[in-house]
Amino acid sequence: MAPLSPLAPAAFPAMPDVAGVRLAAGACGVRYRGRDDLVLVELAPGTAVAGVFTRSRTAAAPVLWCREAVLGGRARAVVVNSGNANAFTGAFGDAGVRRSVGEAARVVGAEPNEVFVASTGVIGEPLADEKIIGALSGLHARLSADAWEAAARAIMTTDTFPKGSTRRTTIDGETVTINGIAKGSGMIAPNMATMLAFLFTDAALPAAVLQPMLGRAADRSFNSITVDGDTSTNDTVLLFATGKGPRHNPVGRAGAARLGGFRAALGEVMVDLAQQIVRDGEGAGKFVTIAVSGAASARAARRIGLAIANSPLVKTAIAGADANWGRIVMAVGKAGERVERDRLSIRIGGVPVAEGGRRHPDYREGQAAGHMKGRDIVIEVDVGVGRGRAAVWTCDLTHGYIDINADYRS
Amino acid sequence: MAPLSPLAPAAFPAMPDVAGVRLAAGACGVRYRGRDDLVLVELAPGTAVAGVFTRSRTAAAPVLWCREAVLGGRARAVVVNSGNANAFTGAFGDAGVRRSVGEAARVVGAEPNEVFVASTGVIGEPLADEKIIGALSGLHARLSADAWEAAARAIMTTDTFPKGSTRRTTIDGETVTINGIAKGSGMIAPNMATMLAFLFTDAALPAAVLQPMLGRAADRSFNSITVDGDTSTNDTVLLFATGKGPRHNPVGRAGAARLGGFRAALGEVMVDLAQQIVRDGEGAGKFVTIAVSGAASARAARRIGLAIANSPLVKTAIAGADANWGRIVMAVGKAGERVERDRLSIRIGGVPVAEGGRRHPDYREGQAAGHMKGRDIVIEVDVGVGRGRAAVWTCDLTHGYIDINADYRS
Repeated sequence: MAPLSPLAPAAFPAMPDVAGVRLAAGACGVRYRGRDDLVLVELAPGTAVAGVFTRSRTAAAPVLWCREAVLGGRARAVVVNSGNANAFTGAFGDAGVRRSVGEAARVVGAEPNEVFVASTGVIGEPLADEKIIGALSGLHARLSADAWEAAARAIMTTDTFPKGSTRRTTIDGETVTINGIAKGSGMIAPNMATMLAFLFTDAALPAAVLQPMLGRAADRSFNSITVDGDTSTNDTVLLFATGKGPRHNPVGRAGAARLGGFRAALGEVMVDLAQQIVRDGEGAGKFVTIAVSGAASARAARRIGLAIANSPLVKTAIAGADANWGRIVMAVGKAGERVERDRLSIRIGGVPVAEGGRRHPDYREGQAAGHMKGRDIVIEVDVGVGRGRAAVWTCDLTHGYIDINADYRS
Repeated sequence: MAPLSPLAPAAFPAMPDVAGVRLAAGACGVRYRGRDDLVLVELAPGTAVAGVFTRSRTAAAPVLWCREAVLGGRARAVVVNSGNANAFTGAFGDAGVRRSVGEAARVVGAEPNEVFVASTGVIGEPLADEKIIGALSGLHARLSADAWEAAARAIMTTDTFPKGSTRRTTIDGETVTINGIAKGSGMIAPNMATMLAFLFTDAALPAAVLQPMLGRAADRSFNSITVDGDTSTNDTVLLFATGKGPRHNPVGRAGAARLGGFRAALGEVMVDLAQQIVRDGEGAGKFVTIAVSGAASARAARRIGLAIANSPLVKTAIAGADANWGRIVMAVGKAGERVERDRLSIRIGGVPVAEGGRRHPDYREGQAAGHMKGRDIVIEVDVGVGRGRAAVWTCDLTHGYIDINADYRS
């Protein structure tokens, strides 16, 4: 196993209970030995659900299941396994999902279309779903309201630390809680949801409110990060609202002003988890924020930011603490979005290195070098066209990435 | 300097003269010490020209110049420098091109719009064009018909070997010659021309015939390779036809049947040079051919092939000699092209690893391992949709790439 990422947070956060949510983690032996690899989450009756999923054309069996199930809008259970992605496993994989779902539905007393499943791990190997099925009733007997860290650990693959985040906010003056756990380390690119993340709130929000709110927040969080530009077959983000918290008035629209605090808190949890995924990027040594402004639209700004963030030449320059801003110019150019070459400006760690389409007259090599040697790198780019802006986050590309991926089958 | 690529050809090919083409290489000291960094090519009066260029939105000054000049269809000189890309150098860079062009035009006795320029090297640093201008008349005095290898060496940056290729073919029974030289090693991705390449023939072909022929051949050669998915600001491919070879009848159309042999030979030279660029990919340890079939179109097949070729996870698996075909499935999925998951099949080194949307029933881990340990890797993918097919070429992603790029300013 890889050593702990140097960018890891000091500790897993203290996570409060979320009324209506109970979890358990355990070992079912799908692939790993001596560690948990299976999570069961039970959700109170009446829980609403929303989801965003990978856009891969070779999406895995559990993703295909969840895409259908989420249309029902109701959830009673989640089953997540690590070690095997159940991707590219044909009809056998689909049948395995149905068998696991059936057993989870039986154990919690729900309908199959109220059960959500997610898998992460190796692609193309048949998943021994009988091991999952055999473990579910044991997990059900051990459900508890506080197994957040255990659950976050059980869904890890090449992750070096478990990822959790929590916020409190109010709706109509009543305090509600949002908890989230996530996993992700490689095969991370912004194509809808880009890893596994599960978000839980005790607020009472119907699926029709949750879904647009989740989609918008995903664009500014999980869709704004990249580790290696690769898109998983299994990316899944699910948001559950149990409605078991303090009672507030019904909410009918995602855009309701009364939901402003909730939207902000949800966004914070999702950005926090997304940034943790980048901080655990395979081989990451530096956390990189790329802020793009002056683009034709927010979407254009994000595409430019991601072109920079995905450039192997930019990422290796950052690994080498080299303020090689020419490679940033290159990456801006290849994004294909409208830019004004002669208005382009670039700052690294706040130091203006380029302005008006050429090197800044006062810039001297080495001015940004101190910043580049740090662990938190900030690159600002203004492309001089319009008012669109976006932030994206990535990590550097190091020998560690090669070490992990030139010999990985987790 | 990096050691010679293990994938390098045994030697630079023996290149015949091309009637109407004379070359000289020399050192002008733009950046490097103790090596040639400047090439002057003189072309006989009446030479026709075609070109394809980077699609970067931050294209370099010499590219902007050539895009205009090529519309005139006539060429008398080419000036190429290495060490500085003259990219993102603003109005000063544009003026530098005009000054260099002016001097080259004076030296060979031509109009400025008959002079073509290309630069490769670091981005964003002002180019000392006075060094180029000061060296041109000296180079002109040393022009010779056989300086092909010297020219190919002078345009190298991180390249570890000079790249040349030659073919003979006939038009109307008359033998004509095609010579090409190229450079490229990193920042290589298929976005029109993807590096510097200069092609010369003594055939008598007008620009209107050369241009479509060059465009089509570029799609199947330079646009079908990738090293790191990054697109240079300076990519340039120029094709010159001097008309000084044995006399053949005039040709009016690129698609003329009489040009079949010429088109094939031109394609061979360009594929040979493109493959040499991959073989000199930064840090490359293995040469990878990806053959995609069963796609909706040739274009779709190429996009799928490039998604596989650009995947850091596929490239690191190849570096590690790991037949991790699940990553190939992932990359096929992220290409965004139509695929039939349950008809997808994959072969590695001829061994069927996946078929009908799942692992091949007879495939056992390790069967493809011997092949993966070799230097020439062949991956075949059929996506089960249509009849489109394409081949793309790439290299693996190794520690060598990180070594080179985490500390490079050539």
